[in-house]
Amino acid sequence: MTFHSMWAELLPIGRSSASGGYRRFAWTSADTECRAWFEEQARGRGLAYEVDRNGNQWAWLGDPAASDAVVTGSHLDSVPDGGAFDGPLGVVSSFAALDELRARGVEFRRPLAVVNFGDEEGARFGLACVGSRLAAGQLTREQAHRLTDGDGVTLPQAMEAAGHDPDAIGPDPERLGRIGAFVELHIEQGRALDLSGDRVGVASAIWPHGRWRFDFRGEANHAGTTRLVDRRDPMLSYAETVLAARREAALAGAVATFGKVAVEPNGVNAIPSLVRGWLDSRAADQESLDTVVSGIEKAAREYADAHGVDLDVVRESFTPVVEFDHVLRDELARILGRHGDPGLTVPVLGTGAGHDAGILSGSIPTAMLFVRNPTGVSHSPAEQAAEDDCLAGAAALADVLEGLVCR
Amino acid sequence: MTFHSMWAELLPIGRSSASGGYRRFAWTSADTECRAWFEEQARGRGLAYEVDRNGNQWAWLGDPAASDAVVTGSHLDSVPDGGAFDGPLGVVSSFAALDELRARGVEFRRPLAVVNFGDEEGARFGLACVGSRLAAGQLTREQAHRLTDGDGVTLPQAMEAAGHDPDAIGPDPERLGRIGAFVELHIEQGRALDLSGDRVGVASAIWPHGRWRFDFRGEANHAGTTRLVDRRDPMLSYAETVLAARREAALAGAVATFGKVAVEPNGVNAIPSLVRGWLDSRAADQESLDTVVSGIEKAAREYADAHGVDLDVVRESFTPVVEFDHVLRDELARILGRHGDPGLTVPVLGTGAGHDAGILSGSIPTAMLFVRNPTGVSHSPAEQAAEDDCLAGAAALADVLEGLVCR
Repeated sequence: MTFHSMWAELLPIGRSSASGGYRRFAWTSADTECRAWFEEQARGRGLAYEVDRNGNQWAWLGDPAASDAVVTGSHLDSVPDGGAFDGPLGVVSSFAALDELRARGVEFRRPLAVVNFGDEEGARFGLACVGSRLAAGQLTREQAHRLTDGDGVTLPQAMEAAGHDPDAIGPDPERLGRIGAFVELHIEQGRALDLSGDRVGVASAIWPHGRWRFDFRGEANHAGTTRLVDRRDPMLSYAETVLAARREAALAGAVATFGKVAVEPNGVNAIPSLVRGWLDSRAADQESLDTVVSGIEKAAREYADAHGVDLDVVRESFTPVVEFDHVLRDELARILGRHGDPGLTVPVLGTGAGHDAGILSGSIPTAMLFVRNPTGVSHSPAEQAAEDDCLAGAAALADVLEGLVCR
Repeated sequence: MTFHSMWAELLPIGRSSASGGYRRFAWTSADTECRAWFEEQARGRGLAYEVDRNGNQWAWLGDPAASDAVVTGSHLDSVPDGGAFDGPLGVVSSFAALDELRARGVEFRRPLAVVNFGDEEGARFGLACVGSRLAAGQLTREQAHRLTDGDGVTLPQAMEAAGHDPDAIGPDPERLGRIGAFVELHIEQGRALDLSGDRVGVASAIWPHGRWRFDFRGEANHAGTTRLVDRRDPMLSYAETVLAARREAALAGAVATFGKVAVEPNGVNAIPSLVRGWLDSRAADQESLDTVVSGIEKAAREYADAHGVDLDVVRESFTPVVEFDHVLRDELARILGRHGDPGLTVPVLGTGAGHDAGILSGSIPTAMLFVRNPTGVSHSPAEQAAEDDCLAGAAALADVLEGLVCR
């Protein structure tokens, strides 16, 4: 089965005709259809198919129990109204690369597996990378059992309804211990490759990343009768802080975003008592991120003081930098460089997004390949990759896997 | 019954112990308690009590059917977590002024009534001044029957549950035609009297007032991976517009407020696709208001263009200036001036807030008195009036009514 026909089979599953985006949320019927597709791909190739205790799917060429396995794959679920490529491109490319290695008549010295990690996007239960977190022991069964979706359905209830035993979930060190390398191919979520004119790149690191809640508290008052000088309007300091975030991020070559806001009382004729804004910020290194966030917070405090507004800043989450395994990363760059124009080097780039490969990098050597996305858009139907670039990505993955399994 | 004891009886009704504010919404049990208090006040004074077809309460001294009546009063309902004074101060002062006229042995040449207009704040059904609008024919029965509260209860259902016939509502020209003058006393909703050092003022006009919806549409994208230069982030143009609104209003001596916002998808890690902000703006005259709003809109379009964001601006509502009856206003100022220090004039001031007196000004001569509010705060438990100022307000109202009923 060609790359093209695998892609065509997946394309209609969970697609909203209204938005043109995908709604493949963990343990829903769209997710079940994607999982059935994965099992078919495994069995159709004569691979050993299994579902691990955490609901991740595996397709094995060679003995799953042997050590030092090479694993490749990604995820099939989506964010709300996401694009077609984020996740599925990695899984389809993995099967295509395995087919290519067989076609090349490669001698497999290590077991090779394709994996589909469950619930990577966290769109339904609010926590990303649930399948890999559970396996790596970064999420306990008790914590996972408390996860609940927007309709009040718990993760165990959803798992059970989809035919998976929720009491089986938990850490899987024995399985991870058998893996010598994990390589995840993913569509790029920015425009670096488009700007450099490359089809494929290698990941260096996942940027450190945090979320901060800014609570600006002023005084609710009548919007028609309160003189401007008598106001303590938190919307003004919020607005100034949004603009400060953009300035600080630009200065540091980082990103900073206020994408979520809650206002009280949120009435057209009421000066707000509270404007709560959430800052998402990421930078190439910890020091840059600290500089950006402390710069924003300092500016916000000055603005709040100037308007008689109280400000509380709470860090809600933080993930330190994830450096991918240097040996594996250099090996990938060497393999890809060898096959390309000798004058060209493969671009090595950081990313601001989290991935299963980032979660697993604490337990096993992991690496990532990125495929060019000319729009640079992510988590939206506007995300794009040309078919030629997809095929180049699958070929690069095949080269990398050949280098690893023949070693 | 003294001003003080009337006030003390009303004070506990509908007060939230959590917020310290009042929740006296139309046709709820708190409203019914307030209305029972009004009926007691009427009957206790031997006044003719009646409820009109629209649920407004009346207490008559003299023949309700006689023409050229003098009417005073206000409302007893509240905004969510409002203060104690907005509305009730006018009703209590009306009864106190009537008592004072009787104590003075005034000869009543015109009928005098105290009124409690229903649902002035519109807190429950979203439309202000329902009782006076219906009477004045500015709201039809059909429109009123479609009003629904946040729990899906319709206005007719709520009226019926409170014992009022919802099919009886509608215009009341015959009743309004018998009224020669309506005077509403109200706590000031700003600090003009506090700044001028006066206890009481006379209203000149209600400022023209409008609401505009600003829809900033950009492109949803990943907050972690999208370069700043590739973004079309509508939050930035929204923030710049919030600050422009403040500047334009300050320049024109007007007010402009963004108090309500809706964001899509409103996710912490998503650049918004849509930021919708509502502008409330009011100014002393139409020309100033036009200048402010067109200045804000022009700035917003420039900001949107600079960020690759689309902007739609929709005027959702507009109320032109309400000039109170000049003859009645001048008469009030003359009466109050006569009783005060001859060197002092009574302040005559505009207001940015709507009132039943504003609604009725299209049908009958209306006037308003304002009582000093040292905090300037409105629609909040922080609204305040000193007891001395309240008594001065009731005395001024008595002087005004004496001047009118003895004419």
